[in-house]
Amino acid sequence: MKFNIFSELSYEVFSDATFIFNIQASSTSYQHIIEESLLISPLLNFREFTLANSDSRYIRLVANQGTFFTITYQASVETQYSVIQEAESLPSIPICQLDTEVVPYLFPSRHCQSDKLRKFAIKEFGFLSNEYAKVLAISDWIFYNTDYITGATDSGTSAYDTLIQREGVCKDFAHLGIALCRALDIPARYFTGYALNMVPPDFHACFEAYIGGHWVFFDPTRLVALNGLVKIAHSKDAADAAVANFFGNTTCTYMNIQCTTANADFQPFIPVPGKGEAISYEPSLF
Amino acid sequence: MKFNIFSELSYEVFSDATFIFNIQASSTSYQHIIEESLLISPLLNFREFTLANSDSRYIRLVANQGTFFTITYQASVETQYSVIQEAESLPSIPICQLDTEVVPYLFPSRHCQSDKLRKFAIKEFGFLSNEYAKVLAISDWIFYNTDYITGATDSGTSAYDTLIQREGVCKDFAHLGIALCRALDIPARYFTGYALNMVPPDFHACFEAYIGGHWVFFDPTRLVALNGLVKIAHSKDAADAAVANFFGNTTCTYMNIQCTTANADFQPFIPVPGKGEAISYEPSLF
Amino acid sequence: MKFNIFSELSYEVFSDATFIFNIQASSTSYQHIIEESLLISPLLNFREFTLANSDSRYIRLVANQGTFFTITYQASVETQYSVIQEAESLPSIPICQLDTEVVPYLFPSRHCQSDKLRKFAIKEFGFLSNEYAKVLAISDWIFYNTDYITGATDSGTSAYDTLIQREGVCKDFAHLGIALCRALDIPARYFTGYALNMVPPDFHACFEAYIGGHWVFFDPTRLVALNGLVKIAHSKDAADAAVANFFGNTTCTYMNIQCTTANADFQPFIPVPGKGEAISYEPSLF
Amino acid sequence: MKFNIFSELSYEVFSDATFIFNIQASSTSYQHIIEESLLISPLLNFREFTLANSDSRYIRLVANQGTFFTITYQASVETQYSVIQEAESLPSIPICQLDTEVVPYLFPSRHCQSDKLRKFAIKEFGFLSNEYAKVLAISDWIFYNTDYITGATDSGTSAYDTLIQREGVCKDFAHLGIALCRALDIPARYFTGYALNMVPPDFHACFEAYIGGHWVFFDPTRLVALNGLVKIAHSKDAADAAVANFFGNTTCTYMNIQCTTANADFQPFIPVPGKGEAISYEPSLF
Repeated sequence: MKFNIFSELSYEVFSDATFIFNIQASSTSYQHIIEESLLISPLLNFREFTLANSDSRYIRLVANQGTFFTITYQASVETQYSVIQEAESLPSIPICQLDTEVVPYLFPSRHCQSDKLRKFAIKEFGFLSNEYAKVLAISDWIFYNTDYITGATDSGTSAYDTLIQREGVCKDFAHLGIALCRALDIPARYFTGYALNMVPPDFHACFEAYIGGHWVFFDPTRLVALNGLVKIAHSKDAADAAVANFFGNTTCTYMNIQCTTANADFQPFIPVPGKGEAISYEPSLF
Repeated sequence: MKFNIFSELSYEVFSDATFIFNIQASSTSYQHIIEESLLISPLLNFREFTLANSDSRYIRLVANQGTFFTITYQASVETQYSVIQEAESLPSIPICQLDTEVVPYLFPSRHCQSDKLRKFAIKEFGFLSNEYAKVLAISDWIFYNTDYITGATDSGTSAYDTLIQREGVCKDFAHLGIALCRALDIPARYFTGYALNMVPPDFHACFEAYIGGHWVFFDPTRLVALNGLVKIAHSKDAADAAVANFFGNTTCTYMNIQCTTANADFQPFIPVPGKGEAISYEPSLF
Repeated sequence: MKFNIFSELSYEVFSDATFIFNIQASSTSYQHIIEESLLISPLLNFREFTLANSDSRYIRLVANQGTFFTITYQASVETQYSVIQEAESLPSIPICQLDTEVVPYLFPSRHCQSDKLRKFAIKEFGFLSNEYAKVLAISDWIFYNTDYITGATDSGTSAYDTLIQREGVCKDFAHLGIALCRALDIPARYFTGYALNMVPPDFHACFEAYIGGHWVFFDPTRLVALNGLVKIAHSKDAADAAVANFFGNTTCTYMNIQCTTANADFQPFIPVPGKGEAISYEPSLF
Repeated sequence: MKFNIFSELSYEVFSDATFIFNIQASSTSYQHIIEESLLISPLLNFREFTLANSDSRYIRLVANQGTFFTITYQASVETQYSVIQEAESLPSIPICQLDTEVVPYLFPSRHCQSDKLRKFAIKEFGFLSNEYAKVLAISDWIFYNTDYITGATDSGTSAYDTLIQREGVCKDFAHLGIALCRALDIPARYFTGYALNMVPPDFHACFEAYIGGHWVFFDPTRLVALNGLVKIAHSKDAADAAVANFFGNTTCTYMNIQCTTANADFQPFIPVPGKGEAISYEPSLF
């Protein structure tokens, strides 16, 4: 599937500030960047970098006091995903046989205090018979029990809070999903990216759970089609994968995010209850 | 400096359980393992693994219900460290010029909610003129304001709690130190290892702050000599670097940790106030 | 119904300490103290007091360093309660018509942060059609979703924690019940007292909700018969009604609590699901 | 001293709602209401009430959906206070000899979790030699270490949060002061009222600590003169003494609060450091 993604962010800088952006589509075996462009206006020196063992791409720059700048990114991206049939049949992989790179996603993180939610997760979802059913129940539970309210939370909000306050935005929904998966010893990671026809236009966050050797997608917000995603990054949680980090006094004055498809025949993937179809982008490790 | 390290851990297993141990000394350019042995008794299948881009070494094993086993590790390790003179003179490295692998240590983590402690850190330590002075003041403040009380905290305790409760063990002291550094935009990471003549005998935790291109050691507990450490792992915090993780119902029934030196002439490194000497193991990245 | 209650508490005092005990049965129109005795051995000066507008009885005393003392209380108490038929039919009383003394029990307190649980309470219980059904559902939900585990919590634990951690003792069950009621604008208060045949022997805590002009009893622990209670105090929560408060360094070395009945024909009140019978001690304010 | 106080609050009501207002000056032996008037426009039925053992005055009313109403209160009030000389000399009253009505102010409450702050309070302020010095140090510490920022907190914020976040408004400053006093076993209570020349105009909150038989005033915000206060209520904390409580969907659309004095010769009471003068309104209980 081919997508056109676009983001434009403007900042007013009140004191010399460093920015770390993470807005570029990742380039992987299952996500091909056909063409892309990055523009910073007025032009500022910047450095691109990636972290070892990661597909995420970062841009670092310094803007001096008084600067007003805009960063614009656009790309044409081809993604590939596979539909998993009968996801309930995916086998449970013993922790001892998990791929080593998956192990860190078992542990709690800044916004996903899975260690504190074990009792809750076991009581609500532990009785279910397979891992896919558990994660689907978690995602459904969040959808039905949490209100999507813009502005209800901030960057300090974490799964522990959301579980009680029952309101938040996509990152909060994702954090809660991840925390509940890990509380059941199911590896889970945070996803940020572009999402087709997101309303209102914005970056999106959801999560992937590691089931039967696949990173399977779940979106407790139900706002977008799971086959309409373009990955920027995955990470332990939003603390590692903010689209923009600032060090200094600055404010975002404008933001425009878009994701459209050139494929007129795009069919949104809508999981049919009981049918057990699921989506994964990354090829199975098995 | 040459150290003999030893750890012996016994477990009673009440239900089939998976263990992930992280008790072996890391092998790096500045820490040489002369000889080592690992014994699991009775013998259980185990897998050793490391994570990409990490020197930490892990052992994974499954123990069945009813098992009673002991894992014993011993090693002879040669470490090298450098003493930094006039640490106050170490330059501050702009975030934009930080080595990319250091960047993740700027962000909050499970037990180090630096994002919540910014005001506190700036008010208490922000006025100090250089990064070494700031981190030293943080370490001293923790020493003077926090009681070392075994059993006062548990694995769910984090820096936010410790800042108020003012009590804990070495991991809590380290977490608070890390959180306060990151709150001042100074990269900091968690250290676990063996420590010479630790009383009572146990693994130890302290922290490293990234100052002037060096990972400089700080120990707010003041329980051990900074040049008497053997590294097991560094990480964002204890959530990533527990010496033992269990998945299943088990209990630790015995624990014996030792660290001695064969060097009769070992001189403990004792920072003299105002003199500004500091210790770093890892060679400077500059 | 006639009960014999007994409590014996021993303390070792490590530094001069003040104690405030709240272990005596309250004396009200519906709870008659036939006879009672209080013994402090060795004899210490003490003062009895009550607070204005309260039936609770307190004993204050000072014990010097090195003292080892025992306080023993016993009483024979006659209680009266009424069984409310068809509790689902109890009318909802508008806040504007609540008796003024009931109003404070609408507000959050130290251990019952009802202001933080509004969304949760409305989502889980808000759809129910009458106040009795709501509170019964709250009490049942706590029983089914929270594990009674001695030692799992401490005096700092509150409803917010218990809602997530899903474990605690009777005071934690009561706090959660109270917080959820208040979150639905139903006045609720904390009850401490003696309970018939409590196993293991201890003081007990449960809660009363104000429904249709009655203070109706609920016990989410289901450990005791609701008509087998002898009231010590009601209050906003345990912060106001600890059976013993200490100011100084002391430890409780022995504790023996008993509650028996002389009525051979005692019939425990067991609410039959769907039947709608409930229990209230205090005569209706209407 | 004679003050003219005025408050005007307007509400738009989106669903039938109950209001409980607590905006009237309390009438006590040390605060005399010369004349006052209350106007609700358009006229709504309302009930005035007080709670037993309290001087606070409440107004309850119901406003139907679609109502837009304004409540206006004005009064002329004469207050009397006494200046305590050499407050450092005020004796410490043993808990065992405290007036019984003061005892509840030793315990933690919703927003003042003194039980969690004991270590902190003892470490920071415990070394001081007398109770007045301790409370003055607490009040000064809050002033110097907390930023007064409108909108930084909400009604769910409590002392535990403020101690770390180091920002808030007058209620947050007061809650932290109260919590730290109680953590040192010094009774403390919350004060709400009108304050002379408050800028920007609003209700004010500060706190009273019980020292040597006097309820002594402290204001960690330093925004107003301590002899320029008109009491609405004192209470355990803001959970008991909100100026307005709503039950229903409503929003405050306008607010105008004023407090002026007719005494041209008003001399603001400014505590001179080291001089030890303090202010109390309520006559000593001794």
